[in-house]
Amino acid sequence: MARTIAILGGTGPEGLGLANRFARAGEHIVIGSRDAARAQQAASQLRQRIGVSANVEGTDNATATAQSEIVVLTLPFSGQAALLKQLKSVWKAGTIVIDTTVPLAATVGGAATRMIGVWQGSAAEAAMELLPQNVSLAAAFHNLGAELLAGDAPIDCDVLVCSDDERAKQVAMELAGKISGVRAVNGGKLENARIVESITALLIGLNIRYKVHGAGVRFTGLPGS
Amino acid sequence: MARTIAILGGTGPEGLGLANRFARAGEHIVIGSRDAARAQQAASQLRQRIGVSANVEGTDNATATAQSEIVVLTLPFSGQAALLKQLKSVWKAGTIVIDTTVPLAATVGGAATRMIGVWQGSAAEAAMELLPQNVSLAAAFHNLGAELLAGDAPIDCDVLVCSDDERAKQVAMELAGKISGVRAVNGGKLENARIVESITALLIGLNIRYKVHGAGVRFTGLPGS
Repeated sequence: MARTIAILGGTGPEGLGLANRFARAGEHIVIGSRDAARAQQAASQLRQRIGVSANVEGTDNATATAQSEIVVLTLPFSGQAALLKQLKSVWKAGTIVIDTTVPLAATVGGAATRMIGVWQGSAAEAAMELLPQNVSLAAAFHNLGAELLAGDAPIDCDVLVCSDDERAKQVAMELAGKISGVRAVNGGKLENARIVESITALLIGLNIRYKVHGAGVRFTGLPGS
Repeated sequence: MARTIAILGGTGPEGLGLANRFARAGEHIVIGSRDAARAQQAASQLRQRIGVSANVEGTDNATATAQSEIVVLTLPFSGQAALLKQLKSVWKAGTIVIDTTVPLAATVGGAATRMIGVWQGSAAEAAMELLPQNVSLAAAFHNLGAELLAGDAPIDCDVLVCSDDERAKQVAMELAGKISGVRAVNGGKLENARIVESITALLIGLNIRYKVHGAGVRFTGLPGS
């Protein structure tokens, strides 16, 4: 049976970009949004861009979650906790949750080049506290800029995947490998997400200082690189 | 007049590696250590390795600081504050200080893949508080592994330079460019050092997980890259 990937907050640029890439790789995508109509509209626009073969739907976040084997969180950090509390009883057992959240200070009115301090250490560990025990969490995709994800050109960036769950880590690494140009890198434990998340603030600063739109990161000295 | 570069804590692997690279680039190096005799011994060994042309001396940290236009801090974080307090009245006005310190948890008996929280935000900002007003500070070289610095092979890694002082930033970027293979990248304000420092913990984790010794980082999407 084909798997379904929900992209929650999927009408935002980051979520829409991931939906675009995963749909192009042949995955069945459900864009989730607070507003089902907006999600359907985004899905329809994405199908028009990618072509009739694209398997993309849209619905509200809870419905998207309930029907999916993989759920990707792409909301601003300020909306993460409220959504996860709302979804508490919705998850299918065994769902793989992939958190892409970066707690930029922008989420509370500050700069996109600064982070806010999260008591748990990272947005991913904050999400972990609010998820039921019968789902698995990985953190990934933080450092891929939305502008790069929007097209279909190869992306010159590694994706660090952090998780304490082997299965979740494998699935997130496999999905990262489906984005043209991207290499999945084992980022270790979920607690390392705090570093990976903060690299996004650094990349946003590089975009500003160097007047570019797609600063990314590659790790060197690894086997095969 | 030729400039002198002091490497404080320069008998440790990171400091010795930077001394090696800067001496090979023709710079006049003074290795500083708590123990002048150990510094002299390290300098003598380095001269033997590099060749008779190498301009490398060794002395105690305070003497090295007093005679140098550029002072590079390469001590473990646990020794940084005590040293800077001790050096308070020693600095020449206008000295460029380059902090390479990474507050790894290892400095208090924890893991080298974890950071300790520094109240000021970063080791560099902690150093800033303890330096006199008439010197300039940049943070750089955090992500270059000591094993890579020891030889003379090109290093496949960028060096992010963070500073609130234009002159200090320029000097640190110029020095980074003297290490074969290395590209200097403008890391923005000194406060960004907290992110750059933490990338070192991530690279140490990559070294462990991938069983390599020289994981590094490159930024993509920048002009000319």
